[in-house]
Amino acid sequence: MRYDKFLAGRANWIKGSALADVMKKAAELKAQGRELISLSAGDPDPNLIPREVLGELAKEILAEVPASVMYTPASGIPELREEISKFLEKYEGYRVSPDDVIITVGGTGALDLLGRVLIDPGDAVITENPSYINTLLAFEQLGAKVYGVPVDGEGMRTDILEEKLRELRAKGVKVKFIYTIPTGQNPIGVTMSEERRKRLLELASEYDLLIVEDSAYNFMRYEGEATPLKAMDKEGRVVVAGTLSKVLGTGFRVGWIIAQGEIRQKVLMEKSPIDFCAPTISQYIALEYLRRGYFEEYHLRQGLPGYREKRDAMLKALEENLPEAEFTKPIAGMFVMLFLPEGADGMAFAEELMEKKGVVVVPGKPFYTDESGRNAIRLNFSRPSKEEIREGIKRLAELYREKF
Amino acid sequence: MRYDKFLAGRANWIKGSALADVMKKAAELKAQGRELISLSAGDPDPNLIPREVLGELAKEILAEVPASVMYTPASGIPELREEISKFLEKYEGYRVSPDDVIITVGGTGALDLLGRVLIDPGDAVITENPSYINTLLAFEQLGAKVYGVPVDGEGMRTDILEEKLRELRAKGVKVKFIYTIPTGQNPIGVTMSEERRKRLLELASEYDLLIVEDSAYNFMRYEGEATPLKAMDKEGRVVVAGTLSKVLGTGFRVGWIIAQGEIRQKVLMEKSPIDFCAPTISQYIALEYLRRGYFEEYHLRQGLPGYREKRDAMLKALEENLPEAEFTKPIAGMFVMLFLPEGADGMAFAEELMEKKGVVVVPGKPFYTDESGRNAIRLNFSRPSKEEIREGIKRLAELYREKF
Repeated sequence: MRYDKFLAGRANWIKGSALADVMKKAAELKAQGRELISLSAGDPDPNLIPREVLGELAKEILAEVPASVMYTPASGIPELREEISKFLEKYEGYRVSPDDVIITVGGTGALDLLGRVLIDPGDAVITENPSYINTLLAFEQLGAKVYGVPVDGEGMRTDILEEKLRELRAKGVKVKFIYTIPTGQNPIGVTMSEERRKRLLELASEYDLLIVEDSAYNFMRYEGEATPLKAMDKEGRVVVAGTLSKVLGTGFRVGWIIAQGEIRQKVLMEKSPIDFCAPTISQYIALEYLRRGYFEEYHLRQGLPGYREKRDAMLKALEENLPEAEFTKPIAGMFVMLFLPEGADGMAFAEELMEKKGVVVVPGKPFYTDESGRNAIRLNFSRPSKEEIREGIKRLAELYREKF
Repeated sequence: MRYDKFLAGRANWIKGSALADVMKKAAELKAQGRELISLSAGDPDPNLIPREVLGELAKEILAEVPASVMYTPASGIPELREEISKFLEKYEGYRVSPDDVIITVGGTGALDLLGRVLIDPGDAVITENPSYINTLLAFEQLGAKVYGVPVDGEGMRTDILEEKLRELRAKGVKVKFIYTIPTGQNPIGVTMSEERRKRLLELASEYDLLIVEDSAYNFMRYEGEATPLKAMDKEGRVVVAGTLSKVLGTGFRVGWIIAQGEIRQKVLMEKSPIDFCAPTISQYIALEYLRRGYFEEYHLRQGLPGYREKRDAMLKALEENLPEAEFTKPIAGMFVMLFLPEGADGMAFAEELMEKKGVVVVPGKPFYTDESGRNAIRLNFSRPSKEEIREGIKRLAELYREKF
């Protein structure tokens, strides 16, 4: 039976994810017994996460808290909302009422929900170019027209943003919001400068826009400054999509939305029919993790230095093996973007790298909102071991030399 | 700052959930120190779930399986998809390839995803009247026009369904699918007869429609027959939304979609940007639970007899305390629907019952697709203890006598 005729017209807006394709191909090769080095994931390192501690927590919670196997309110466990409000005050430098914290199914769930409440088909949304592929897809599935603003070493080019806003206003296009990952941007690995952050907020005010701040990598900062936009937000223009994914592990699916007023209200009303609630056991684990100070003990003191070492290992390996290549030098996040020579095809390169050298990377192209980025390759350093990073980059450099 | 102007036009489609309102009100009273008896939840009993066993599983998995804290493929862990395919063959009587099993964020996530792939704004969808409020809201948020077909003791009135289909066809309205909870229906607690099931499938074939079968309560059957529609489906018209929520606990958020062809493909493509994946630790717990035969050991042998006793306790209490009232007699599920005298206001009654007698129930009205059901009250028997059921119904009967 063919099902085409039953599909919604909007299903035509649904595009495949190059990320999912790469993961699928890699899984197939692994199933065939190939040993692969993966520099592809957006995962933290399971060995830098205190899994035994989390396991003890889970055991204790499931046995002792009957509510831990039940639904929670759509907004999440009240105690966790309070704990996150304190956590944000302490580590992000801004105060929000626990009422304005809504627990979501990871940062992905937060962004999809915000999109659903804010985007009508045909609405204009501005993002960095490149930007996180899943958010681009989520917004496009909702019918948004996405406009990308290029990024340099200091983050989103606010001068080009200004031009774009002026141009769109002149055309009568109403921009709904600007979506940004200011810190440790995925996929390009840059962090927005303090100056650009200020400018971005000024422009949002001038053009009367919202900013959706994706703070996924805020707790993966290795050096330098990166004041959250929300902490600089005097007018209430910043709505936050946050997550503990990079700290606790991506599998727990605990994220949050920080929103006020009608947005918060609509998100709350919309949420229950979509996912009922974020996973309860994950919420309780997150609650105890924060309450017991494990964020400091395990993430800040042990995890973060480990990721810094890996970042250093990747940059060093790139400098040694590919001194002539261009690549970003992240002070936060999980990714380095490597640029192949102008005109090279990153998709083909990534495929060949997997097939011939057993190294999995993600082509940068699908993260771009236009035809640029054809030669970009996203490299993850958070998940692989330092040895895998060195070996992976060595093999990547071999193929690079064979081809260019 | 007012945010109205930033909201999507579609945000106007978002309606509040009476269920959420009741839960919120009850939480407020509890916070004030009121002791409440709740006959409202859609949760199983945390004491009939082997929480210590699940806790041991969680501990073991988190410590020993690095992947347990990471993302899974959007479709879920391959081993779990296989296990669910075997589980469905054994307990539901139909065979599907593990490829056609997509792990979702509970049954709620499954239904929302199916709605997103199938419904365009303005599309007609047929449901039982009454039907599960969150699904109605999810479909309405997607712009569906929902048509309800009344239910009697044998489930959806297929004779009225036929009339409705004929009428809609005559008007040129294209129906996308029929949504049904054939077994242990929420909120009304009836189970569709075998005859009606056959007729429903015949009509779907005649009118060339899909059926979305919500099998949430299939594993909460106390007696009688209830062949899953999917097991009777020769043409591939049935798409299933399933869940382990009633077995493992609603908080784990492990559900599934069974779909083929283009529907399966689009669901898979759409899923990653929405939730990335269902919670990983929950997926592993579900996997081990099924693999080790705990479904049989804990749910079938211990849980199910416990729920049957509670169902019996509620029916007995109603018969003894309110012999003159009309109420449904479920052979499956978690709910009894009680009907106040004709013309009575169930919303007001539920409020008064909470305030004056400390008993929380859910008014039936919001589950109806039209103005009927004003006098209906949904009673849950799975979560409260037998003592709470007896005491709750006694107090409910007191108020009933005071009012009618």
